Amino acid sequence: MAEMTIWYIVIFSIVAVTIAYILFNYFRIKKMPEGTEEMKEMAGIIRSGAKAFMKTEYRTIAIVVAAVALVFSLFVEKTSGITFLIGALMSSSVCILGMSAATYANVRTSNKALSSKSIGETVKVALCGGSIAGLAVQAMGVLGLALILVIFNGVDHEATGGGFLTTLPGVNPSIMRISTYSLGCSLVAMFNRVAGGNYTKAADISADILAKIRNDLPEDDSRVPNVIADFIGDNVNDIAGNCSDLLESFVATMSASMMIAVILFKQYIGAGAADTAALEKVYSATVSYPIILGGLGLLGCFIGLLFAAVKKMGSNPSRELNLATWISAGLTLGLGLVGAWFTFGQTDQTILKETYGWALGWLTPWICAILGILSGVAIGIITEYYTSTDYKPTRKLAEMAPEGDAFVITKGDAIGSRSVLLPVLVIGIALFVSGKLAGTYGIAIAALGMLSFVGATVSIDAFGPIADNAGGIAESCHLPADVRVITDKLDAVGNTTAAVGKGFAIGSAAFATVSLIVSYVGNYTAVGEEPVLNIALFTVVAGAIIGGALVEYFSAMLTDNTIDSAKIMADVGDKQMTPEVLAGKETPDYNMMIQLAAKEALKKMLFPSILAMVIPIIGGFVFGVQFVGGLLIGATIVAIPRAIFMGNSGGAFDNAKKYIEIGALKGYGKGSHAHKSAVTGDTVGDTRKDVVGVALDIFIKTMSTVANTLVSVFRNITLIR
Amino acid sequence: MAEMTIWYIVIFSIVAVTIAYILFNYFRIKKMPEGTEEMKEMAGIIRSGAKAFMKTEYRTIAIVVAAVALVFSLFVEKTSGITFLIGALMSSSVCILGMSAATYANVRTSNKALSSKSIGETVKVALCGGSIAGLAVQAMGVLGLALILVIFNGVDHEATGGGFLTTLPGVNPSIMRISTYSLGCSLVAMFNRVAGGNYTKAADISADILAKIRNDLPEDDSRVPNVIADFIGDNVNDIAGNCSDLLESFVATMSASMMIAVILFKQYIGAGAADTAALEKVYSATVSYPIILGGLGLLGCFIGLLFAAVKKMGSNPSRELNLATWISAGLTLGLGLVGAWFTFGQTDQTILKETYGWALGWLTPWICAILGILSGVAIGIITEYYTSTDYKPTRKLAEMAPEGDAFVITKGDAIGSRSVLLPVLVIGIALFVSGKLAGTYGIAIAALGMLSFVGATVSIDAFGPIADNAGGIAESCHLPADVRVITDKLDAVGNTTAAVGKGFAIGSAAFATVSLIVSYVGNYTAVGEEPVLNIALFTVVAGAIIGGALVEYFSAMLTDNTIDSAKIMADVGDKQMTPEVLAGKETPDYNMMIQLAAKEALKKMLFPSILAMVIPIIGGFVFGVQFVGGLLIGATIVAIPRAIFMGNSGGAFDNAKKYIEIGALKGYGKGSHAHKSAVTGDTVGDTRKDVVGVALDIFIKTMSTVANTLVSVFRNITLIR
Repeated sequence: MAEMTIWYIVIFSIVAVTIAYILFNYFRIKKMPEGTEEMKEMAGIIRSGAKAFMKTEYRTIAIVVAAVALVFSLFVEKTSGITFLIGALMSSSVCILGMSAATYANVRTSNKALSSKSIGETVKVALCGGSIAGLAVQAMGVLGLALILVIFNGVDHEATGGGFLTTLPGVNPSIMRISTYSLGCSLVAMFNRVAGGNYTKAADISADILAKIRNDLPEDDSRVPNVIADFIGDNVNDIAGNCSDLLESFVATMSASMMIAVILFKQYIGAGAADTAALEKVYSATVSYPIILGGLGLLGCFIGLLFAAVKKMGSNPSRELNLATWISAGLTLGLGLVGAWFTFGQTDQTILKETYGWALGWLTPWICAILGILSGVAIGIITEYYTSTDYKPTRKLAEMAPEGDAFVITKGDAIGSRSVLLPVLVIGIALFVSGKLAGTYGIAIAALGMLSFVGATVSIDAFGPIADNAGGIAESCHLPADVRVITDKLDAVGNTTAAVGKGFAIGSAAFATVSLIVSYVGNYTAVGEEPVLNIALFTVVAGAIIGGALVEYFSAMLTDNTIDSAKIMADVGDKQMTPEVLAGKETPDYNMMIQLAAKEALKKMLFPSILAMVIPIIGGFVFGVQFVGGLLIGATIVAIPRAIFMGNSGGAFDNAKKYIEIGALKGYGKGSHAHKSAVTGDTVGDTRKDVVGVALDIFIKTMSTVANTLVSVFRNITLIR
Repeated sequence: MAEMTIWYIVIFSIVAVTIAYILFNYFRIKKMPEGTEEMKEMAGIIRSGAKAFMKTEYRTIAIVVAAVALVFSLFVEKTSGITFLIGALMSSSVCILGMSAATYANVRTSNKALSSKSIGETVKVALCGGSIAGLAVQAMGVLGLALILVIFNGVDHEATGGGFLTTLPGVNPSIMRISTYSLGCSLVAMFNRVAGGNYTKAADISADILAKIRNDLPEDDSRVPNVIADFIGDNVNDIAGNCSDLLESFVATMSASMMIAVILFKQYIGAGAADTAALEKVYSATVSYPIILGGLGLLGCFIGLLFAAVKKMGSNPSRELNLATWISAGLTLGLGLVGAWFTFGQTDQTILKETYGWALGWLTPWICAILGILSGVAIGIITEYYTSTDYKPTRKLAEMAPEGDAFVITKGDAIGSRSVLLPVLVIGIALFVSGKLAGTYGIAIAALGMLSFVGATVSIDAFGPIADNAGGIAESCHLPADVRVITDKLDAVGNTTAAVGKGFAIGSAAFATVSLIVSYVGNYTAVGEEPVLNIALFTVVAGAIIGGALVEYFSAMLTDNTIDSAKIMADVGDKQMTPEVLAGKETPDYNMMIQLAAKEALKKMLFPSILAMVIPIIGGFVFGVQFVGGLLIGATIVAIPRAIFMGNSGGAFDNAKKYIEIGALKGYGKGSHAHKSAVTGDTVGDTRKDVVGVALDIFIKTMSTVANTLVSVFRNITLIR
């Protein structure tokens, strides 16, 4: 494993350089001027509100994480609690760092717009904030995994022992460490998404009710006490939630690839076809390549984002931002090719071709990675088609608005459902082709391909909410109109670039879950046998149908929680809207609403978040591995179309409303009854896209990761056989 | 097979008696007085509109059916075209007869209310109409299958030959006849549901737009030209569509059970465990019991409905109607036990227990049938809980109405999603238990159990739209208020009893599809091997994900078509609403709108209906049997929760609106802004529950039936292996 030592040195060096760059940017942002006193005050409220929320949230998360870690270490495998903690820690630190950077960057972005009046320079401030979050996601994900591999001596396919349940046959503590690390990231991501979604949308929707239904005020009017909670929500959900979400995807994909490497090795060594030493070498390559690709991708993103940071930007910055993404992707691919050569290129090509069935030898995994990237791009373009006002679907939706709310909702439902097919065809075809090329390992690497430059995509994603907040601050602090023009432009850029990011998030979740399920099946399969999950068995099919229904139930819980919290916040906020407040003579108590939003979100976070962990455990101990395999596949098959539906119908509603607001629908402008119907659509879409849609990915990945962690346990202990 | 001859005599006798009873009732209804001239005229418009629509619709259906039959006979298997035609014919005759009876019964129901002022006597007229449709469904379903079995000498597990493609290995013309018969029923049902849903909801929604949004008139106002098309729609979708839907379920379930009987026999004979002659006898019992149970159930329903027809009814007829259902179910079960004794009781119990694994011997299938019935009842009760104003969910929905349309929709979405879990748990547990008891044959018989008294459930279902139409006629013809009180009461009774019917429809569709998929897998499995569909293979999982997306796409097409047709009908209707019409001086041109509704429905019927047939064929020839297996399972896993969501969210919206209309929501009555929001919910729910939800069942069953028919063909011919 001498070559692996060299790789570790390379990976740790890349991580070290990136972290240094992140810190440099963080302090650079912090030193920038914040602008007027009013801006400072507003930014202070947002920052302290966001921090207070995170603090309370992490108190709960810490207790749950500590309890789970203890259970793992005491009852399952003694080191698995530690690796679980490392995962939770990496995820938490990314969230806190990212959100902190964003809440510094927002006001400095508005101030830069005010002081420089230059779009190019303003973009750089927002992007600098975003790149702190983005690079941290990839750096921490790689760092945690690399640390575990170094501390615990890599992934040993023959490891045994290490605690009570690991004495059971087939339990491998080495695999368990990888999957509990991933699980630590999953659990934190789940809490962040569920709580963040509730926070931001309860605030947003209640602000809308108070303004539009109960008091006939314009949107985001500062007399509505719920407005600031809405600004905070952007940071809580779109920064912290998104960072932990994609960190989880990235880590889950790397760990699934590594677990599949172990399973394949066991299958082929059991079959006894090839030379053992050479097969061991191939095993070593397959198990290392995921983290190598992830680490090299970090270097690619670092260079790509550095390019954007130093390059002079013109008045249409979306070109430069896209360029930064493509430089990151291109470098990642180039470096990934080098990585593939140094790992797979040095192994026995006959084993790769014949035993593993990789027709293209050492190049095969790399081609699968390209396939993954291409499908991510394709899904992004399709998302754009269904949700942007430049294309027919959203325009048709806007044209339905004059017929009333029911027409808007029904048409939006149809667009959402229709938009599912093409992305899923892309996923299906890519699964098919990568499976043909390199079996299940190919599928896992395709997923990793999409996420191998996650640092760049998250940076661009995080750019959006920073620009959005900057615009909100400009509005609330009554900055000159030309400042608002700049921040609006930034906001629009963020919306466009976000579509590609969404494509990668959905596509990689689908691929990662499929890899996790295959790895799950492999984990209960005996050495030398082909992994089988027979859905023609009644146990599996019963599990699958129930798994699908659980996705609906989880969606219902999040939707109900959001709407109930919104109603409570509207009722409390209403009482504050005294005649003095409405006349503009008094400011409403923003803090009270901020605390209420946090209280509601935290109260409603626990049950849905824990559900994803608990279901496969109960299912496994009661009905066994086959039933849980069914659960996972059913949940995945339902969650993928539902997540796309939620995201795209929500996006189309949002943009159809904007289309009417800019006056593009002939005869109906802002304030017309058509606009009111479009606003109804937008409000319905809010919960769909920002609460439910984004949480479904994590739901299925958490379920799959828990199942992977414990499969070898409940393979041995099951109530009903 | 002497005992089978006796059974055929029994079955044909039951069918003959039932058909005689159906005809007797038909002419009895026809002879009843229609009432005033105005009523006659109104009823005439409805009847002739419905007939004209059916005539045009069946012209298209006839062409498609003939073409498909020809293809089957020429290229697949020479007799399979004939059996396909028999299926289509049975389904069509039930639709035409049922709708004809309903359009006679509606006006006679209002007239009976007018002349007798007695709820009890009025109920009997509506039920008499409904029972013609209901009994015809079960009688024709059994008749067609029995005819095929008699003409072609039963189901021969060793049959070969019979046409071009049947020379391929593994193609069994005997099985193909059964599955093409079922496919004939499926195709007609698909056309009826798709066209009927579009017709009725485009008329309904456009009438609503014209009344409420564009002209501020009350619902169902006769100045709106689209109103009569709406009345016709009730007959087209809720009678013809529902009859062909449940006929298809019933036939598909019988045929799936028979196909599974063949598969099990092949598996066990191949394994070589048991005495061949005794095993043949068990085979003969397993393959005959489905039609025996179906035939005996027809007798049970005949007696149950006869009871309701002769018994004196009081002022709360729902007790008597429920009693009629339970007498039918009870008799079916009792007769089914006798049937089980005469078939399975006479075979080698050791083979049943050891080879087939039926722990309870000959009683086992019968117990599975009971399990099916119990789950149907449980799903019905759960449906009632989520959609009736007597319980919390719908009341909570109504309480959200004062907060506006977006809240109503979001809450309704949450209720719909939440309502999925319990029915699916019931289905999952029943699948698990019936699978444990009697393997896949147990699952198929559980499905058949639910449908074994389909004659009674469809009769009660059909009662609803007849009562609804009777009320509409009473309103339009300005009959006295006490008549409307009676018809309203009938309508309410219909709504309550419908919940149980829905439970059976959804539950049996889930079970039937699972049986069809298992049968599909068995059909490509070699003799003596265990049927496996390995979803851990990338081909299968790619198919499953795409299958799920197709369900969304199909839903989107139907939704889009409905809403587009509604807009067109609203625009055309609007032009007719001249000042004279609005002043009540002129009647609008109802016929023009009736023709437009038909034209729209027929134009938009073809593509979605054919899709379900074409997808598995293309999938099979291009990607092979494994991929199609994935498609089927994916489509089923997504369609079940979606169908429940559509039905229950639609039902809750509908009833929340009614809750406000009867003044049960404090402070908000008819015409309040809360009521308007509830109306929006109801309109959104219309498309969901009456167009999409009811079509999803047929979509998955049609796909599965096509796949079953052709599996042995594309097992041999596949482009990409």
